[in-house]
Amino acid sequence: MARTALDVSGKKMAVLPPLFRRYGAELSCALRASLSYDGCRVYDTLRYAMGWADSDGNPVTAATGKALRPTLCLFACEVIGGTADRAMPAAVAIELIHNFSLIHDDIQDHDKTRRGRPTVWAVWGEPKAIVSGNALRAVADISLERLVEQGVSIPDALRVIALLTEAYLQMIEGQYLDLDYEKRHDVGQDAYLNMISLKTGALIRCSLEMGAFLGTKDLGAVDAFRRFGRSLGFVFQIRDDILGVWGKEGKTGKPVGADIRRKKNSFPVVHAMGHANGTDAAMLREAYRKEALDDHDVAQVLEVMERIGTRDQAQALAQRHCDDALAALEGVALSPQAQEEIEDLAHFLLVREH
Amino acid sequence: MARTALDVSGKKMAVLPPLFRRYGAELSCALRASLSYDGCRVYDTLRYAMGWADSDGNPVTAATGKALRPTLCLFACEVIGGTADRAMPAAVAIELIHNFSLIHDDIQDHDKTRRGRPTVWAVWGEPKAIVSGNALRAVADISLERLVEQGVSIPDALRVIALLTEAYLQMIEGQYLDLDYEKRHDVGQDAYLNMISLKTGALIRCSLEMGAFLGTKDLGAVDAFRRFGRSLGFVFQIRDDILGVWGKEGKTGKPVGADIRRKKNSFPVVHAMGHANGTDAAMLREAYRKEALDDHDVAQVLEVMERIGTRDQAQALAQRHCDDALAALEGVALSPQAQEEIEDLAHFLLVREH
Repeated sequence: MARTALDVSGKKMAVLPPLFRRYGAELSCALRASLSYDGCRVYDTLRYAMGWADSDGNPVTAATGKALRPTLCLFACEVIGGTADRAMPAAVAIELIHNFSLIHDDIQDHDKTRRGRPTVWAVWGEPKAIVSGNALRAVADISLERLVEQGVSIPDALRVIALLTEAYLQMIEGQYLDLDYEKRHDVGQDAYLNMISLKTGALIRCSLEMGAFLGTKDLGAVDAFRRFGRSLGFVFQIRDDILGVWGKEGKTGKPVGADIRRKKNSFPVVHAMGHANGTDAAMLREAYRKEALDDHDVAQVLEVMERIGTRDQAQALAQRHCDDALAALEGVALSPQAQEEIEDLAHFLLVREH
Repeated sequence: MARTALDVSGKKMAVLPPLFRRYGAELSCALRASLSYDGCRVYDTLRYAMGWADSDGNPVTAATGKALRPTLCLFACEVIGGTADRAMPAAVAIELIHNFSLIHDDIQDHDKTRRGRPTVWAVWGEPKAIVSGNALRAVADISLERLVEQGVSIPDALRVIALLTEAYLQMIEGQYLDLDYEKRHDVGQDAYLNMISLKTGALIRCSLEMGAFLGTKDLGAVDAFRRFGRSLGFVFQIRDDILGVWGKEGKTGKPVGADIRRKKNSFPVVHAMGHANGTDAAMLREAYRKEALDDHDVAQVLEVMERIGTRDQAQALAQRHCDDALAALEGVALSPQAQEEIEDLAHFLLVREH
């Protein structure tokens, strides 16, 4: 049974599974060690981006993310019979690549703040921010060189490098598709789901696949984790899209309708565009033809989504992927505790509020 | 004796050594194969950047570069006893990384044209151009996966990956330093030379080191090629800097004084700033305090450089690095033909006009 709690109104709410705290200390140490070099000021920008330093290089404790990807990687390795240490270089690499993509995404989207702090380009300018992201990508590659020190065989290390490169390229292809779809609101549900399976899904899948690969020689089990990860990526992103429209400002930091207002292609919009009829369809097309949507437009779009059941459909789709994720692991021998933690994890991603 | 010819005025001139045509066909095939995927439109931007397609994806024959880095890589492998085929995946990777850096450089510098064509960002916009560069970097990594197909052992393939990652990170650090030095004209000769050894030198060195490593088991010889490459990188960049100030427009595509006009930090400027005295020094400082230098300023800066012998000093420094480069290979057993080709190559980089 998934770990949930009741809030004051008696509704089930999502609590971050303890799993997300299990590797925190070791992961933080390993990440910091990977970026400890002081021979070039580009590392100042990287320690800033990771939330460890201010723009002058002084230590700070800024809000950081959930470290979802490295947690998945370390957990998969452990749960299938390996040790977290063995997968640590891969976990570090995937977290650095995720942060690299945030640095470049913020330039592309001209976002000036992230987690309440100015973005790297907002502090150092676009040219340096481009280079900063590229440096983080390179440090990720260097992290993988430590796999062999952790007892991973050279052929297995080469395989992990290939897995990460594959996922990285898929992420980049997904980012390109996402940019290609910008200002288009007729992309269709299948094309949209393919895009997110690349842009967001590839790294999540790869986190689990690399972790499992480093934890067992049973390639069938590794493939099961790959399929688990692929489905989990959909759960993560579809829930993210739901929060982007209906998330509570106090939890997500964004007002209701935020992704509608900025005309972001997300599952709810793609669903509404594909399912609205008659005057609803005409209204949506008209609203999205505008340069920017105002409060009234946003309210109208939300009403259309309400009428055609967009939110429920989105959550149902996330639920189906969550079921697929858990089904993918059915043939894998896991301890009851591991099984419960996996269910908690999947359920958390399905119902999380932030 | 280096291969040179006499121009109509009777002066020695630099002729592109035949070496640069030796691998053209195979290299072009391998590069095109690496970018033949059609599943995502990002590859259109990459084939455009490589000069093989127009912005609509139609085949064209645009001017391409000399392919210096892959040529060095394949040549080093052959000359030391290997085959060019064996080093081809590494040669492809290094050429793709070079082109990746050009795509991102053009964004950073806001350069709208390169080799007479609009740059990637000028055609597709900055966000897509950032992603396009990142994709090229990933395709380079994937190219290295083919080393094993060419008979390279798995440990050796892993070593080549590490060599390329090291050089890549150095290049990125050099790019960051270069941006950091922008608008500063007091960086000093040593800091400047360190920056170019990273920004330009690392890939040139790595081309030769990877090629040699793939061609011989003699690690002393590999190290000799590494040192050869390090010195050759200085020859290349210092000569490039000379051409950026005194190159002939018909050959370089830039007017005389181009790098002075745009206040680019290059060796001649660093030299002049460090060696000019009295009124010359005051004039330089004043000219470089301006937002942009006009014709009169450029002429004055050129006069100062003439008085303090900047051009001769720069060429003499390039010559010393050329001598160091050739000295690095002295202990390596090479055929007389190989020796002559290496001398021709080094001499060409020392005296080239474009």
